Amino acid sequence: MRAVLLLQCRDRSGIVAAVGSFVADAGGNVVEADQHSDPSAGLFLQRVEFDVDASLTSLRDMFAPVAERFAMEWSLRDLAARPRIAVLASRQGHCLADLLVRDALGELAGNFVVVGSNHDTHAELVQRFDVPFRHLPVSRDTPEARDAQERALGALLHEMAIDVVVLARYMRVLPAWLADDWNQRMINIHHSFLPSFAGARPYAQAHERGVKVIGATAHYVTPELDQGPIIAQQVLPVSHRDDPERLERRGRDLEAVVLAEALRLHLEHRVIVYGRRTAVFD
Amino acid sequence: MRAVLLLQCRDRSGIVAAVGSFVADAGGNVVEADQHSDPSAGLFLQRVEFDVDASLTSLRDMFAPVAERFAMEWSLRDLAARPRIAVLASRQGHCLADLLVRDALGELAGNFVVVGSNHDTHAELVQRFDVPFRHLPVSRDTPEARDAQERALGALLHEMAIDVVVLARYMRVLPAWLADDWNQRMINIHHSFLPSFAGARPYAQAHERGVKVIGATAHYVTPELDQGPIIAQQVLPVSHRDDPERLERRGRDLEAVVLAEALRLHLEHRVIVYGRRTAVFD
Amino acid sequence: MRAVLLLQCRDRSGIVAAVGSFVADAGGNVVEADQHSDPSAGLFLQRVEFDVDASLTSLRDMFAPVAERFAMEWSLRDLAARPRIAVLASRQGHCLADLLVRDALGELAGNFVVVGSNHDTHAELVQRFDVPFRHLPVSRDTPEARDAQERALGALLHEMAIDVVVLARYMRVLPAWLADDWNQRMINIHHSFLPSFAGARPYAQAHERGVKVIGATAHYVTPELDQGPIIAQQVLPVSHRDDPERLERRGRDLEAVVLAEALRLHLEHRVIVYGRRTAVFD
Amino acid sequence: MRAVLLLQCRDRSGIVAAVGSFVADAGGNVVEADQHSDPSAGLFLQRVEFDVDASLTSLRDMFAPVAERFAMEWSLRDLAARPRIAVLASRQGHCLADLLVRDALGELAGNFVVVGSNHDTHAELVQRFDVPFRHLPVSRDTPEARDAQERALGALLHEMAIDVVVLARYMRVLPAWLADDWNQRMINIHHSFLPSFAGARPYAQAHERGVKVIGATAHYVTPELDQGPIIAQQVLPVSHRDDPERLERRGRDLEAVVLAEALRLHLEHRVIVYGRRTAVFD
Repeated sequence: MRAVLLLQCRDRSGIVAAVGSFVADAGGNVVEADQHSDPSAGLFLQRVEFDVDASLTSLRDMFAPVAERFAMEWSLRDLAARPRIAVLASRQGHCLADLLVRDALGELAGNFVVVGSNHDTHAELVQRFDVPFRHLPVSRDTPEARDAQERALGALLHEMAIDVVVLARYMRVLPAWLADDWNQRMINIHHSFLPSFAGARPYAQAHERGVKVIGATAHYVTPELDQGPIIAQQVLPVSHRDDPERLERRGRDLEAVVLAEALRLHLEHRVIVYGRRTAVFD
Repeated sequence: MRAVLLLQCRDRSGIVAAVGSFVADAGGNVVEADQHSDPSAGLFLQRVEFDVDASLTSLRDMFAPVAERFAMEWSLRDLAARPRIAVLASRQGHCLADLLVRDALGELAGNFVVVGSNHDTHAELVQRFDVPFRHLPVSRDTPEARDAQERALGALLHEMAIDVVVLARYMRVLPAWLADDWNQRMINIHHSFLPSFAGARPYAQAHERGVKVIGATAHYVTPELDQGPIIAQQVLPVSHRDDPERLERRGRDLEAVVLAEALRLHLEHRVIVYGRRTAVFD
Repeated sequence: MRAVLLLQCRDRSGIVAAVGSFVADAGGNVVEADQHSDPSAGLFLQRVEFDVDASLTSLRDMFAPVAERFAMEWSLRDLAARPRIAVLASRQGHCLADLLVRDALGELAGNFVVVGSNHDTHAELVQRFDVPFRHLPVSRDTPEARDAQERALGALLHEMAIDVVVLARYMRVLPAWLADDWNQRMINIHHSFLPSFAGARPYAQAHERGVKVIGATAHYVTPELDQGPIIAQQVLPVSHRDDPERLERRGRDLEAVVLAEALRLHLEHRVIVYGRRTAVFD
Repeated sequence: MRAVLLLQCRDRSGIVAAVGSFVADAGGNVVEADQHSDPSAGLFLQRVEFDVDASLTSLRDMFAPVAERFAMEWSLRDLAARPRIAVLASRQGHCLADLLVRDALGELAGNFVVVGSNHDTHAELVQRFDVPFRHLPVSRDTPEARDAQERALGALLHEMAIDVVVLARYMRVLPAWLADDWNQRMINIHHSFLPSFAGARPYAQAHERGVKVIGATAHYVTPELDQGPIIAQQVLPVSHRDDPERLERRGRDLEAVVLAEALRLHLEHRVIVYGRRTAVFD
């Protein structure tokens, strides 16, 4: 088995040696190890990927005393386990389509089990890839109708035993309870270089301000809109020639690539969230 | 002579032909021409660089009727004229030093005539390059002392017949009257990817927010802090490993390059400001 | 109609004025114009996009005398005409899938009429998008069998009245006669930053050499392998962590984006080939 | 003291634990640790930076048995020791000037002790920074004169007890014996994105080939011209507008930044050479 250990704890002497001894004692062989000390936060973070002939249960039992000694937050996972992925989308289909294609080509380290959407625009596209499509419309523009739709969405995700939710240009603001339920397991793509142009119509805002570079940001969803920990960002130089429509077109490729990148990092257990920040061990 | 014509006017039929005929009638040969229509603003912008055997005065006389017909804002300049440059700096020396070196190597299309600073930190460095250094300290932290320093600065720039002022990490906020006096002739470098992290300590802000890309922005100074038309921006990928000190170090190279780039664009008359935006014909 | 005029000729005085007058005389309004003088080649290149109420035929008649006067190579096209696109692929599906999705989302300024492949790996994927798939296998590894396959491919392209051929990781070297037939109308993606790592297995070559940046190159096909005029290139920083497999995975996104970009530039008539180079007016 | 341990050996179980225990036993605290396994080469590489109260000698004694057990190539250094730097230049001054300025601003983690050049073009610039300048002209174009100059250069470097040599656009090919003497301690900047355009006049070659991206490459010097292990590369998008002169101007900023970056990585002991490649732990 190839296992991945993620951990964080207060920084002090001896952690690296203790973790190294744990892997050696388990008969494991380190394939990749990366760590980070954040002196301002007094924190130590580490990711260790190792090959080992042992069950997850026995490894967790072996590691528990080490974790306790250093008061770690930690997880130990089998890299071959394939998380169940739900994708939520609205009218824009480029991020959704990009993920469908990656799945069809066998590039995703997870199982793409359902697409939910408040619009049925892309029902046919999704069905072409033999992925179930669930239409979750907001029947009227009332608090009750919105709440009903959000409950239906929450129920769908639980029913289908989803591990990670991907907001592929899903254009509805989620309620705090749903963001909390999926804390560190729900990834959104925002079509700007956050914190610039949070909120609505970022390409129009970018054009209005006359910036020379645009970007896209993938982040974990938190109850505060567009404020969650950033996983990945990429940028693109633009010029006065790029009107808002053209910014939007050029931005689409960026969004799809950044979102897929963030999902890959999440599925390979390469992201540790600490405070409002992430360490990405790639 | 190599001449540069910059113009903007309401967009309508026949402008390109009229400008083309003007150059042909003057016996000129177009070396480079670039234009931009902004339909949302209803504007047409153009830059034409041409070789011609005629004086600036006669060319301006010839062009005046064309300009009047289309109600243009315009300028016509000799590309070989070397504008007089003043650089303002504070304690950080990297942007200042970068400009001194470019000047020493003959890379600047202008004459570097004076450095002004509220600190004398870099007096010796500047003198090594035989450029006059003027120390303009703020004697006390009172409105009167601040005003006196700003007046002294304004007087210096006028006295020395400066054409363009470069704020090379000059860390004082300028009064509105000074920004207005130097409208479209004063370039600032802001050490973030604006509009993200306007104001003070952008690298600390960037670290706090956990962004994965940082940037630097060169813009014309307007009375509103960090809100002027953007000339150039560049960015750099960063990671959790980059603490604020390291962001600052890595950002320094970016700042120097972006500021030098913006100054070059300005000196080559490649920038047209319209509204809060710039067209950069490079 | 929105028309696009592309032209090249020896550089001399009066071209810009003559073209400007042509558009004005036709009652047209320039939407976008861009030009380039290459003094070393003595060439002038221009792209003019303009709105006009006139037929292509009458415009071509009007322009012919201007073109003759300056001995131009030129074309005048209706931007709304949708070229017929054929895509050729082999076992790797990412570039093909990316184009299928762009077509399904209505992003391509052309009609995607057929996919040809020497393997049937992606027959099902293509059929999901209701695009005809033609399997063109090489029956045996003999010169005769290869030639027969190449003839079948050439016949297919002519039969289907294809305007532009896209090699989306088509892994067979084409014969010179086919490259010549499709001169400036056949676009290939090479999975390296040409001229580095031309030929086979570029990611393995890149790893072997230890480069810190990889790239992808879209170019027009010519009889000389990987030597045609470059339309678009993009790059990606990499590190010692990227083994050949990982370079390949990371490169895939780049290849798909660069190929789609080159196709867009071609379909919007933004590319002029001169010598071994292109001018891209974007 | 802050110490840096660099090591490489055949990959096997237990290395990480052994190194971790060494640091813990020495009473050290790991500040930064990074490692890399290269399965194709069967190699394990590691960089460990740690704070410790012990002398270099005692640490080396403590580590020797660990190193022997795993048959490591290794070094253990005090990060505060400042290597002695020699810079070689020719007629182009931008990389040289950039390093002089970084030194004047206190940015270099080493002492800039001498500049050698086959031309005296920049003698005055260097003297402005109070750095000794040595003119090493090639008196005639004969093998004997070239050899004499190379011997003088070699003698200078040894006399001045230089630790690292920086070729800042030094335009002479060095003899194999000199490259061998300074193996892994001599850094060159090549003004192209290697392996593209090795050898002379890379910007002219790049223009001729019509590439859309240019680059600069910093590498360790080996007897094979432009073939040494690459430390850093950066790139810049270009277009048909960039003639060779303009490519050269735009490339200069890139060259200076990439060379300074490579020197920083070397001075901070962040580079391990293995085969023709480097691992850069930054």
